[in-house]
Amino acid sequence: MSEMGITVKKSENFSEWYTQTVLKSGLADYAPIKGCMIFREHSYAIWEKIQEIFNKRIKEKGHKNVYFPMFIPESFLKKEAEHFEGFVPEVAWITTGGNSKLEERLAVRPTSETIMYAMYAKWIRSWRDLPLKLNQWCNIVRWETRATKLFLRTREFLWQEGHTAHATKEEADTEVMEILSIYKDLVENYLAIPVLVGKKTENEKFAGALYTTAVEALMPDGKVLQMGTSHNLGQNFAKVFSIKFIGEDEKEHYVWQTSWGVSTRMIGALVMVHGDDKGLVLPPKITPVQAVIIPIFYKNVAQKLILEKAREVLNKLVENGVAAVLDDRPAYTPGWKFNEWELKGVPIRIEIGPRDVKQKQLTLARRDTFERLAIKEEEIVDVVNKLLEEIQSNLFNRAKKFLEDNITTVKTYDEFKETLKKKGGFIRACWCSSPTCEEKIKEETGATIRIVPFEKEKPFSNCIYCDKEAKDVVYFGRAY
Amino acid sequence: MSEMGITVKKSENFSEWYTQTVLKSGLADYAPIKGCMIFREHSYAIWEKIQEIFNKRIKEKGHKNVYFPMFIPESFLKKEAEHFEGFVPEVAWITTGGNSKLEERLAVRPTSETIMYAMYAKWIRSWRDLPLKLNQWCNIVRWETRATKLFLRTREFLWQEGHTAHATKEEADTEVMEILSIYKDLVENYLAIPVLVGKKTENEKFAGALYTTAVEALMPDGKVLQMGTSHNLGQNFAKVFSIKFIGEDEKEHYVWQTSWGVSTRMIGALVMVHGDDKGLVLPPKITPVQAVIIPIFYKNVAQKLILEKAREVLNKLVENGVAAVLDDRPAYTPGWKFNEWELKGVPIRIEIGPRDVKQKQLTLARRDTFERLAIKEEEIVDVVNKLLEEIQSNLFNRAKKFLEDNITTVKTYDEFKETLKKKGGFIRACWCSSPTCEEKIKEETGATIRIVPFEKEKPFSNCIYCDKEAKDVVYFGRAY
Repeated sequence: MSEMGITVKKSENFSEWYTQTVLKSGLADYAPIKGCMIFREHSYAIWEKIQEIFNKRIKEKGHKNVYFPMFIPESFLKKEAEHFEGFVPEVAWITTGGNSKLEERLAVRPTSETIMYAMYAKWIRSWRDLPLKLNQWCNIVRWETRATKLFLRTREFLWQEGHTAHATKEEADTEVMEILSIYKDLVENYLAIPVLVGKKTENEKFAGALYTTAVEALMPDGKVLQMGTSHNLGQNFAKVFSIKFIGEDEKEHYVWQTSWGVSTRMIGALVMVHGDDKGLVLPPKITPVQAVIIPIFYKNVAQKLILEKAREVLNKLVENGVAAVLDDRPAYTPGWKFNEWELKGVPIRIEIGPRDVKQKQLTLARRDTFERLAIKEEEIVDVVNKLLEEIQSNLFNRAKKFLEDNITTVKTYDEFKETLKKKGGFIRACWCSSPTCEEKIKEETGATIRIVPFEKEKPFSNCIYCDKEAKDVVYFGRAY
Repeated sequence: MSEMGITVKKSENFSEWYTQTVLKSGLADYAPIKGCMIFREHSYAIWEKIQEIFNKRIKEKGHKNVYFPMFIPESFLKKEAEHFEGFVPEVAWITTGGNSKLEERLAVRPTSETIMYAMYAKWIRSWRDLPLKLNQWCNIVRWETRATKLFLRTREFLWQEGHTAHATKEEADTEVMEILSIYKDLVENYLAIPVLVGKKTENEKFAGALYTTAVEALMPDGKVLQMGTSHNLGQNFAKVFSIKFIGEDEKEHYVWQTSWGVSTRMIGALVMVHGDDKGLVLPPKITPVQAVIIPIFYKNVAQKLILEKAREVLNKLVENGVAAVLDDRPAYTPGWKFNEWELKGVPIRIEIGPRDVKQKQLTLARRDTFERLAIKEEEIVDVVNKLLEEIQSNLFNRAKKFLEDNITTVKTYDEFKETLKKKGGFIRACWCSSPTCEEKIKEETGATIRIVPFEKEKPFSNCIYCDKEAKDVVYFGRAY
């Protein structure tokens, strides 16, 4: 059993703890190909939950799912210069099909703007065809050369990418913000991870965008993780791909576009933010299994009765919409099962032993607090539902407190560097808005401006770098 | 509007009719990359229905969804010789990542046996780890050199591939048959396409399998389309990938494996089997939209009343589980909308005009028979539900009759060739079971043995090719 559990503490060796937690909980494994990973059943089930939640939200808004080819001719990728520069260092190239060398090499999509917009130019003719609101769930390839980190840095990952076209900039602006608020809702209210939202600086925006907005979360090691981005592409791509429509005014116009995405890296954040020394701790609204029932046999006493009771409890919970499972595998001991389900982060464990049956009670254990409570059998559905809600808020509140405790306001570059070194987190500081200062800070400290708040905050010092007049209060951080 | 409709008859130019139907109904489009296609919203929504139905069935059986890398090192693909020979002519190769040439080129998965089983060897240790039942939904690449045919022959397509490992051959046999019966159920009871099921011959089995079973359907042009396959892989891959477990007998054994898949080509079958000169005709159980409500305005008479009524009907239907939509786009005429929704194959159209409102009635039109009926407003939910059932059975029965009418029993090779030339379809004939006769027939006529029935039929003639004693009654056909 010691082999099965995690052998380091989260507080002592965060990086090793993370890897062990991901591997031992059965979320993922390294693939036998450099830089690649396998999304095992436990993480894929979480991904399916994310898909379900997000699909529901965007379909209500009239978005449709589609699937575009993953091959992108090099010439397409080159059309938008900034975009090409941004992606080309990380592209995997297909050069041979069957026995023939290809005339033009094909990129495996690092993102799909160019292939999709070549078609938008064909499909969009009139204002009647707008808005066009498409989304796809697919695999993405970026040829990372840095060390592999499961979920966070792999050469292939999964994501959704939405791509919309609108008649006006205002509509595109609204779309960008609506999607950002869906992302915030998904991350905060389902993954239970509090975030900061805002705009990216020119340096940090998406390659080819007019502007980028983002949802950023704080990890326990003080580093920041970008959870999702929503871009207004302006008319940049429309112009290079010639996406035009005849307006109600009977004149020709370029469309305004947005693109936005979240990826499987969110699962990495879930591990880091909520996990503990026993493994994963999954928020009830995103976990594939909310409650596990474990029958406890002493020798052969009351085995049949216990199993009957366990099935009864299972049915009751499932009928009431709880994602419950019964672990009645005879080949494993209760202790082994406790460990395994703790590793997997299941919010509630329900134990049923001979005494529980006799006393018509059940013993519950909370994954987040390890609290154990004995309850009356007939209360099970109510108690479980209440507990699930409590666990969901407890996880969010815990993470929220951590976030708040780790937003540090600084007035000088010395304070800035000191905070970054000792504590990390988000650093709230004043900036003159010059890209040069931003770059210097990045070079010297590794920290970048994660967001510029949507609601401008009043500067409370000069620019921390150049000491000239500050234009913005921004949030810095060292990112994954 | 003439540009919008299909300009050829299904009975006169089937191939052109197919392409126009797929393009004009908005199911798909050609990608600007040779051999590739775009799954537009209408086909992707059908694919999501297929996923939903199939996921439900396999999850009930304890299968789990996962996601493996799409890159397969050449050395992996080579491990099982037959498998490699089968796939290598159609592999797309990645040779460059970022700016570096790769040491070993990587195949884009043409199927995932080899990458998955390299991991199975690591994950499976004991009989307690069995059965292992995983499935993935993903994109697949096969570098076709023949002419592109939307859904049927493209270089990239979507599929699910299931891969299981078992302790015994019997368990693997059972798995193969259970999956086959899920496929049959999916195709017959949802897609409304009747099929023949059976075993493939040695020549036709999957590269690397012990045996292959399949679900085969007949298209209106007399050609046969393979709708799904389920393979018993025996211990072939287990031996080359060294997938072993310690049994309850404490000895080491190789696992027995199965793999199985269905792909987006099923959507092509859906188009071909049910479509008509007006476009798609979608079975109610697989269509994303079951009923469309179209308000009909004459000048401005009663416009508000009509729209209110339309929304009321919409809500009633949606509340009762009918996938209904209201097409209230002001920019299009009712006639234009009728055509568009007919093209898209929506089973029921509900018209609401001024007279309907006045008489508290609704006018319904069936897509499969073009029958129109006026019904009382309050009956709408019952009538729609009844009609949807009727349409579903009508489509299946129509296709079933066509299939039965096109299974021809022949006793001689002359009859065989004659039938193939004049009628196509499935040809039921006797065969000596020699691969040589099978190959000769294929060479000379293009027809292959589609299935050997599971329940052996008694031969009624000698082998149609060599005239020696027949061992099996089999079903031939020319396949897509």
